[in-house]
Amino acid sequence: MNPFRFELLHTSKKSRARVGRIHTPHGVIDTPNFVAVGTNGTLKALDNAAVHDIGLQLMFCNTYHLVLQPGTKVVKEAGGLHKFINRSMPIITDSGGFQVFSLAYGSVADELKSRGTKKHGNSVIKIDEEGVLFRSYIDGSKVLLTPESSVHAQKDLGADIIIPFDELPPYHISPEALLRSFERTHRWQKRSVDTHLSMRQNQAMFAVIHGGLNWDLRKKSCEILRELGFDGFSIGGSLGKNKADILELLANTVPHLPDPFPRHLLGIGDLASLEASVPHGIDTFDSSYPTKLARHGVALSHQGQVNLTKGENKTNYGPISNDCQCYTCQKFSRAYLHHLFKAKELVALQLATIHNLYFMVHKMASIREAILSDSI
Amino acid sequence: MNPFRFELLHTSKKSRARVGRIHTPHGVIDTPNFVAVGTNGTLKALDNAAVHDIGLQLMFCNTYHLVLQPGTKVVKEAGGLHKFINRSMPIITDSGGFQVFSLAYGSVADELKSRGTKKHGNSVIKIDEEGVLFRSYIDGSKVLLTPESSVHAQKDLGADIIIPFDELPPYHISPEALLRSFERTHRWQKRSVDTHLSMRQNQAMFAVIHGGLNWDLRKKSCEILRELGFDGFSIGGSLGKNKADILELLANTVPHLPDPFPRHLLGIGDLASLEASVPHGIDTFDSSYPTKLARHGVALSHQGQVNLTKGENKTNYGPISNDCQCYTCQKFSRAYLHHLFKAKELVALQLATIHNLYFMVHKMASIREAILSDSI
Repeated sequence: MNPFRFELLHTSKKSRARVGRIHTPHGVIDTPNFVAVGTNGTLKALDNAAVHDIGLQLMFCNTYHLVLQPGTKVVKEAGGLHKFINRSMPIITDSGGFQVFSLAYGSVADELKSRGTKKHGNSVIKIDEEGVLFRSYIDGSKVLLTPESSVHAQKDLGADIIIPFDELPPYHISPEALLRSFERTHRWQKRSVDTHLSMRQNQAMFAVIHGGLNWDLRKKSCEILRELGFDGFSIGGSLGKNKADILELLANTVPHLPDPFPRHLLGIGDLASLEASVPHGIDTFDSSYPTKLARHGVALSHQGQVNLTKGENKTNYGPISNDCQCYTCQKFSRAYLHHLFKAKELVALQLATIHNLYFMVHKMASIREAILSDSI
Repeated sequence: MNPFRFELLHTSKKSRARVGRIHTPHGVIDTPNFVAVGTNGTLKALDNAAVHDIGLQLMFCNTYHLVLQPGTKVVKEAGGLHKFINRSMPIITDSGGFQVFSLAYGSVADELKSRGTKKHGNSVIKIDEEGVLFRSYIDGSKVLLTPESSVHAQKDLGADIIIPFDELPPYHISPEALLRSFERTHRWQKRSVDTHLSMRQNQAMFAVIHGGLNWDLRKKSCEILRELGFDGFSIGGSLGKNKADILELLANTVPHLPDPFPRHLLGIGDLASLEASVPHGIDTFDSSYPTKLARHGVALSHQGQVNLTKGENKTNYGPISNDCQCYTCQKFSRAYLHHLFKAKELVALQLATIHNLYFMVHKMASIREAILSDSI
């Protein structure tokens, strides 16, 4: 029996929002759920045992980074990523495609700022049908990432959910170029899933729906990828430039995905976008936003964001939130956290990250409750 | 009854080494013991609840830093330093003298490198009989630190053990200048202890024995300070330029201190110097060395230092030490720690600090055992 299984428990009477359970070899992921980003096999400033205690059910690691450091062979020799990083709960890895194309075109944010004038970075040597050849930022060595090598790397890592190698087109792109990229990204995903299926080992693979902001292409992408044997679907490619774009994209894409399969939204930004995406039927969301905010001194709360570095917290001897049961709120005051940020103490980053991660885990539980009672 | 009391349990038959207990309002400090440095009210990279769990019995905080950020009034309003930083076990604060004179003359290490050519830093405006006027590195405001203001600041902080304001003379100093500094430092300590005794509030004050590398002056310092009502003695001032200097200094100083009082060695460097100082009858040692080493990727072990960043640890899937019960060794491998350091992940600093702190706490326990059996 395939250890990977999606159980759809309830769909809201009010929207496409749904509650489910993704079963994996490393336990259950209750959905909808937040997926924290632990690029190098750790969340920034927080060890994996602490992350486990907070109850984060799915962690997102980046194959691109792990290929370059420590190398996937080191991880495989350790017994796989779970054992290497000491995480007993589920992990998802991406293909590395996002990072190599960000190197080539700049990140989406960079690109929006530069209005598409930014060209290939120095580190990308060649992009062709085979894959992407680039230089390691660590030792300058040449690395070839292809659909096959990405899947092999992800097999070495052994995450519960893996992603096919895809091309991330720039946001500023001509319709013709988008179409060429669209066709290649689907050929690459076919090669990826074929490689995956030829060597199956307790992993699920989620397709990446492409098509930019062209709804016909998004629909076509769903139709193509539904036929290839994927275990779930993630929505990737260019998601547009703001929350309105994302929501319109979801409204025009999710209806073309089969209900019995989990749906992941790749690299969502802020909490508001996440909350707005739930009614469109998205099950999981990866975002570095809550942990990045924490490192900038901003704590999440049900009453809005709390900027711990602001002067008003200098003599606030209460916790971030009176109703929060997290390690940080149980032990430390806003005034102390304010002081730690002002004194540039590393522990400030850790304590704020604990709080924001705990907030997200519990926020998602309350979202699931709301869906079960059809109020979302 | 004074909550502060030193209980001398055993003196070695082999040396001046002794085992004791310092009783404080926040519990017992078993001696000899290591005192970790938490300058801003936290160890670097480690929260105080974790430090408590490791069992560190005495933490050293710096008044100079806390005066400037967050200000001692903020700490007082929080209910004192223990409450502000959430530490239930004993704390010692220094007077700020060390830092302001390091600003003036450069640190001892800087000064040894510059052979005494470094003069007053820009931030020190005036040094006279009253005290030291300097500029805050945070907001540029003028701050006057005197024996009285230092003690008042330390009363606001409310540590279990406090230190009188003293002058730290430079290592490169003429005999005449050393004598002038010697006389002023004792006048300042008299003013400090008088201020302290006039407003006693469950704190002990440890004198600072001065005299540089002049054994007559060290003896005289002991004789002067024994008469002033201090609860213990710390050995400060210039400790020389290497371990041999320190040990000769201790051999010529400790015999002039009364046995029934605890003895602290201020700012000891490495572990070897600490171990060599125990047979001279020192009870407590503050050092940032073990935690600083950790942040540079060096772990302490009974088999010597382990440099986690070295290539030999890349595929070492065992813990730092097989016989170590610390959080880090119980959960994470050398290979993972190596990776975290290479990937510049903050959590590497935290995990290595946990290990080194745990090592020191248990190292000191084994030193106490060895003294009890007269083998040190």
